[in-house]
Amino acid sequence: MTKIRKIQLNENDMPTQWYNIQADMPNPLLPLLHPGTKQPIQPADLEPLFAQALIEQEVSKERYIDIPEEVLDIYKLYRPTPMHRAYNLEKILGTPAKIYYKNESVSPPGSHKPNTAIPQAYYNYKQGVKKMTTETGAGQWGSALSFATNFFGIECKVFMVKVSYQQKPYRKSMMNLWNGSVIPSPSMETNAGRGFLAEDPDCPGSLGIAISEAIEVAATHDDTKYSLGSVLNHVLLHQTIIGLEALKQLEMAGDYPDLVIGPFGGGSNFGGLSFPFLRHNFTEGKKTRCIAVESTSCPKLTKGKFEYDFGDTAGMTPLIPMYTLGHTFIPPSIHAGGLRYHGAGAIVSQLLKDGLIEASAVAQTESFEAAVTFARAEGMIPAPETSHAIAQVIREANMAKQEGVSKNILFNFSGHGLLDMGAYDEYFTNHLLVK
Amino acid sequence: MTKIRKIQLNENDMPTQWYNIQADMPNPLLPLLHPGTKQPIQPADLEPLFAQALIEQEVSKERYIDIPEEVLDIYKLYRPTPMHRAYNLEKILGTPAKIYYKNESVSPPGSHKPNTAIPQAYYNYKQGVKKMTTETGAGQWGSALSFATNFFGIECKVFMVKVSYQQKPYRKSMMNLWNGSVIPSPSMETNAGRGFLAEDPDCPGSLGIAISEAIEVAATHDDTKYSLGSVLNHVLLHQTIIGLEALKQLEMAGDYPDLVIGPFGGGSNFGGLSFPFLRHNFTEGKKTRCIAVESTSCPKLTKGKFEYDFGDTAGMTPLIPMYTLGHTFIPPSIHAGGLRYHGAGAIVSQLLKDGLIEASAVAQTESFEAAVTFARAEGMIPAPETSHAIAQVIREANMAKQEGVSKNILFNFSGHGLLDMGAYDEYFTNHLLVK
Repeated sequence: MTKIRKIQLNENDMPTQWYNIQADMPNPLLPLLHPGTKQPIQPADLEPLFAQALIEQEVSKERYIDIPEEVLDIYKLYRPTPMHRAYNLEKILGTPAKIYYKNESVSPPGSHKPNTAIPQAYYNYKQGVKKMTTETGAGQWGSALSFATNFFGIECKVFMVKVSYQQKPYRKSMMNLWNGSVIPSPSMETNAGRGFLAEDPDCPGSLGIAISEAIEVAATHDDTKYSLGSVLNHVLLHQTIIGLEALKQLEMAGDYPDLVIGPFGGGSNFGGLSFPFLRHNFTEGKKTRCIAVESTSCPKLTKGKFEYDFGDTAGMTPLIPMYTLGHTFIPPSIHAGGLRYHGAGAIVSQLLKDGLIEASAVAQTESFEAAVTFARAEGMIPAPETSHAIAQVIREANMAKQEGVSKNILFNFSGHGLLDMGAYDEYFTNHLLVK
Repeated sequence: MTKIRKIQLNENDMPTQWYNIQADMPNPLLPLLHPGTKQPIQPADLEPLFAQALIEQEVSKERYIDIPEEVLDIYKLYRPTPMHRAYNLEKILGTPAKIYYKNESVSPPGSHKPNTAIPQAYYNYKQGVKKMTTETGAGQWGSALSFATNFFGIECKVFMVKVSYQQKPYRKSMMNLWNGSVIPSPSMETNAGRGFLAEDPDCPGSLGIAISEAIEVAATHDDTKYSLGSVLNHVLLHQTIIGLEALKQLEMAGDYPDLVIGPFGGGSNFGGLSFPFLRHNFTEGKKTRCIAVESTSCPKLTKGKFEYDFGDTAGMTPLIPMYTLGHTFIPPSIHAGGLRYHGAGAIVSQLLKDGLIEASAVAQTESFEAAVTFARAEGMIPAPETSHAIAQVIREANMAKQEGVSKNILFNFSGHGLLDMGAYDEYFTNHLLVK
């Protein structure tokens, strides 16, 4: 009997709707507040920044939302993505747990990020938008949006956190190849950027600062909209295709997860995988534990407060009800740039507050140890963000071993680390700046 | 009606045998000659360098050879690989041709190379070998052998062509991650290396030189065997899993190729895809044109001579009947390191001499133009080697357009270019050293 390592869906079996968890949350979201009036914002307030269809999705209570045909067609350049059973890792750990991972690294930009970049570019294109701006940390999101806008003839300008811009030059090249332009942030192109540079000319940047810059450009140009790669409800909605595929694939394998684990920056990676399983918790009495894994360098879920805060550093966004470290918090320069964000999206924050999901934090060194173990066992080289989830998987698999209990663990292999090899070098030579 | 972009095989449908074209070639291969005596070599002459099972495969006339269960199991970490229909590229070119590509870039090292690295490591492991040496150009092969030997606890030492070692530091990191050690070649570790450095201290290296170094280490150490990533018959044999899968996938799509195109360094990439189709030419009267695409900087197929020559620069290998530019030829420093080899494997050389396959050459600039067109159309970023095949595909698709004839074109997307983004930068900024 040969092991089946990969569970593949056919394109015809790919989900054709996203799942909207707002339809099933026991407690509804608190409203976003206008930064000026502190009153609940109206959809119209968001129109300078976002395409109409995305604003509708942001507040929708529809349980399932159709994926446009044009989006499905581009998804099929890399979706459905494979699910793997990590037999080698199980064996090395000597765990009775079964470990499955959903491999989102097969997309051309190398992560799950195009799942929302493609529909965001599409809805903007349908509305006649010619230019889009965004921010990026490690470069995964900026690459994804460049990849997506390129298909629709939209110009893309990416503000990239300066420390990542310096650490990961190949990410810039990749964005350029897909016709995106890249600016290290903080930059002299915006009032926000000039302000941060005046305070600290050596500022390494952060996602919060880059968001301020990208929003400013969109807000001050009529032909330009803004795009966010995580945090917002519509972003998490688009990412649920990951979990919807995973549900089908686990069903093919005859399994259901006891644990669902995803790395956590703003919520899109974790939410995308876990929400379809949480639905079964809410509506079918399942008891899957869903664990969001953040960096100990940026511990908003495990050490932050639930309160209204800005999504960006300069305070230009609506006030969001979320777990936050404060919008002026600038995290240490860990390699997992995608986890360097001060807050958590509203949905995930509400779920955590209500005790419906769990959170955990992993230090950078433990994440690289886990990454190396994984790469030697399964071959695939994880992105630094993904490695945080793997560290948690290893903790849980070891606990299952101690307890002598089998568990089904599913995690999101959200991206590969091929453009992060310099970070592995630092780990091997004991040169990581942050332990 | 939605387009089906990807044709996926299930693991259960993966081929369980390799195809050996030696069983069906109209003219048999000329023998390899002993470098000292100039007489046909005996299998025993190769035993210092290669595991017994590989030597047997080198001279076998069996049509199909079983893939060991342990090899199939590791193949399944990334195989079967997807086949894609390049609808977007077809549309951009406005061609009536159908373009399919076999995506070998999904392996953890990012190319087709593990297809032979895994069985080579396995047969050496079965024979009790503890150490292996090899050479690598752009780093694809060295990564693949490090990846493979890691599963079997074999130490791996890789001599990496110096110019590539400098251009592609991330490849070194990747080999280290999989427990491989990497030495820039020419090096001071071998007599061969010291000799080349004495002649030219700035020698950029070449595959031929690196082979000399790796062979010397294996030949002078009893516990060490050598491994080659292309050229040899057993290497091409292992790679036929690509074409065998492709046959099944095209059958699923209801198509059969008029043209099969692969980039050409030593033959493993091209042979792996094309040999199962050539079999149908030989035995079923099919007329598929199989085109090997080399670099104009290293034109052994289109401008070389068919004669006995050494496989390495120092003249340590058996004499091989092949198309060659001479074993002392050092190609210009193009980014497609895998194409920088002076000769062609014996099987491909014999097939070309007999008029059973075709050859074509592409200049570096044309290859990058093709790569950019492809990446913007299909998303995937090709390796520089792969880009040479894509350039030929575009030529053929344009010809089909001019002639107004539909053709089915299949090519080998043999590797991704994620670790070659610096080369794309040079292309975009007009800094390519070789046009």
